[in-house]
Amino acid sequence: MIKIDIKYLAKELNLAISTVSRALRDSHEISAETKEKVFALAKRLNYQPNANASGLRGQKTKMIAVVIPEMVNDFFSLVISGIEKVTQAQGYHILLYFTHGDHALEVSFINTLANGRVDGVLLSITDEHNDNSHLELLNKKGIPLVLFDRVSERMDNVKVTTDNYDSGILATRHLIDMGCKKIGYLKIHKNIPVGTIRMNGYLDALKKHSAQKVPLVLECPSGNDEAFESIRRMLVAEKPDGIFASVEKLAVICYRVCEQIRLHIPQDIRIISFSNLHTASLLNPSLTTITQPAFEIGETAAKALLRIIQKKGGYNAGGNVVLQSRLIKRNSTAR
Amino acid sequence: MIKIDIKYLAKELNLAISTVSRALRDSHEISAETKEKVFALAKRLNYQPNANASGLRGQKTKMIAVVIPEMVNDFFSLVISGIEKVTQAQGYHILLYFTHGDHALEVSFINTLANGRVDGVLLSITDEHNDNSHLELLNKKGIPLVLFDRVSERMDNVKVTTDNYDSGILATRHLIDMGCKKIGYLKIHKNIPVGTIRMNGYLDALKKHSAQKVPLVLECPSGNDEAFESIRRMLVAEKPDGIFASVEKLAVICYRVCEQIRLHIPQDIRIISFSNLHTASLLNPSLTTITQPAFEIGETAAKALLRIIQKKGGYNAGGNVVLQSRLIKRNSTAR
Repeated sequence: MIKIDIKYLAKELNLAISTVSRALRDSHEISAETKEKVFALAKRLNYQPNANASGLRGQKTKMIAVVIPEMVNDFFSLVISGIEKVTQAQGYHILLYFTHGDHALEVSFINTLANGRVDGVLLSITDEHNDNSHLELLNKKGIPLVLFDRVSERMDNVKVTTDNYDSGILATRHLIDMGCKKIGYLKIHKNIPVGTIRMNGYLDALKKHSAQKVPLVLECPSGNDEAFESIRRMLVAEKPDGIFASVEKLAVICYRVCEQIRLHIPQDIRIISFSNLHTASLLNPSLTTITQPAFEIGETAAKALLRIIQKKGGYNAGGNVVLQSRLIKRNSTAR
Repeated sequence: MIKIDIKYLAKELNLAISTVSRALRDSHEISAETKEKVFALAKRLNYQPNANASGLRGQKTKMIAVVIPEMVNDFFSLVISGIEKVTQAQGYHILLYFTHGDHALEVSFINTLANGRVDGVLLSITDEHNDNSHLELLNKKGIPLVLFDRVSERMDNVKVTTDNYDSGILATRHLIDMGCKKIGYLKIHKNIPVGTIRMNGYLDALKKHSAQKVPLVLECPSGNDEAFESIRRMLVAEKPDGIFASVEKLAVICYRVCEQIRLHIPQDIRIISFSNLHTASLLNPSLTTITQPAFEIGETAAKALLRIIQKKGGYNAGGNVVLQSRLIKRNSTAR
C-alpha cells in the first residue's frame, strides 16, 4: 500500500518537500496558488499529517496525561468523564496512568512524561508528604501541570479541590443533629491530605457542637479483610452511635460489619460517607453522602490545563479552584 | 535550562551524533568501549530519549488506544484496570477515547489513529450493524486491532467476549427455577449485538424450560426518565413475576419503579441482571447478577494485542477468546 506522506505529495506536484510542508502549515512564504494545489491533492488523497512528526515539528503533541491512583471507584470514573468532555471538544488526546498509590510509580511516570510525550499533565498525587522533585522537573521543563483532588500544598501549580474541611464539619454536624452522641471517624490508612483535612473538620465540629469529649478515630488498614476486622473490633469495643467514613469503601465495609454483628442502621448506628457511588440511594439502607462534584472537578482541571497549554496565562494561570460538595440526606442517618 | 539530547551527548563526548544514536540503540556497529562511554554519560545526565523522535525512528510509539463507549459503569472501569495491568508491565501507554455510543465519533477516532499515533487499538464498538470500513482501514494500514465485549462478527480480528448466549439461558433458567411464571426481558435500546445475543438466550430458555408461551420483551428508551416510565407501564399492565435486565442500569431503574408502585422484591417480582456493580450485594434487596469477568476481559484483550504488535503472530494471532460469566445468587431472586 502506498504511504500518502509529504514526500509523496511533493513528488506528485513536482514541488520541494519543504514547500509542501510549509503550504500545509499555511505559511505566508508560499503563494496562495501553490497552497491551493497542495490542499486539493492532500484532500483528494485523504492525506493526514503523521501525529509524531507534527508533534516534533510544532513541539505540540495534542496529548495530555491523566495520572490517578486507580479506577476502582466512581469518583475517578466521573473525573475522567469530565476531563474527556473538555479535551474531546478541543481535539486533545488523553494518556491514562494509574499509580496504584505507589509514589515510586508516580515518579517514574512523571519523569518519562517530562521528556515531552505530552503537552500537559493532570495529576492526583499519591502521597503529599513525599518528595516533589519530579513535579519540579515538569515545571522546569515548562510542561504545564494541574493538580486535582489530592494535591500538594507545597507546589505553586494550579490546584482544583473540593472544600474537604467544610464538608468534614458538615458531615459531623449532620450526625450530631440526628442525635449521635459518640461519633467515630474512619480514616484511610494512606498519607493523603484529604483524609487529614476531612478529619480536622470532624475534630473541630466535635469541639464546637458536641458534648463528646474524646474523638474516636480509627485508622483503617489498607486490606479489605483487615479493615473489616479493625472496624468490627472498634464497633464492638467502643459502641459508637455514629460513623463518619472518609471514603466510600470504608462505609461499604462498615455496612457489612453491621450486618454481621447485627447492628441496625440507622436505629443502632448512623452512617455518613464521602461518596460518589451512583447506587448510594439503592443501598440497604440508602446511604447519606457528602458528594463531591467529581465530573466538574475533571472539567475544571482540564480547562485550567488547556488554558495554560494554550498560553492564555502563566503556569498557574487562573489560580486555584475550590468546588463545593453537597450533603445528600438518606436513610442511613435518618432519625 | 540545557536540553539533554543526543546532540548534547555527542558534543560532550566529541563523537558524531549518528554514533551516539547507534550506541544508544546498542548497535553492533559501535565498539563496546564507545557504548560504555555513551551509556555512562547518558546515565549521569539522566538522558531519556524523546518519545516522539523514537516513535518516528522505530515506527513504534509504545502507545495503544482504548476506545470504549463510556466510563459511567463498573464494567468498563474494570476492563481498563485489566488492560492497564498488562500494558504497564510491558511499558506501554494507554490513550483513552469515549465514543458515547456515537458511531460517527468512533469513525473519526479510528481514522485519526490510522495515521500512526499508536501501535495498536483495543475497541468495544458502538454499533455492530454499521459500516466497518474505518476498521478495515486500520487492517490495511497494518495497525493491530483487537475487539472486545461489543464486537463485529464481520471482522476477522481477534475478539474477546463472554458467553452472552449461555448466560442469557442461565439467567432465565434461574428465574424459572425460583418459580417465575411470567418473565420479562429488559432490552437496551441500542443496536449492539450483546443485547440481542442475551435476548436469544432468554427466548430459547423460555421455549425449552418454561410454560410461558409469549415472551415479554421491553425495548427500553435511552433516557432514564423515559425508561422508568416505560418499565412502570409494563409492570403495571403485564404484571410479570420475574425480570431479566440486560444491563445493570435497567435493573437499577426497575428497583426504583418497584419502590414507587409498591412491588416487593423478591416476594412480588424477582430480578436478575447482567452487572459488575461492586455494591450489588448491598442493594436493597441484594441483586442477583450474571457477572462478567471484566478485569480478565481487559487483561486478555491487551495480551492479545501486544502479542500481535510484537509480531508473535499475524493480525489475528491466538484467535478469539470467550470468557465465562458467573451467576451470583442473592436476595432479589430468593424464594
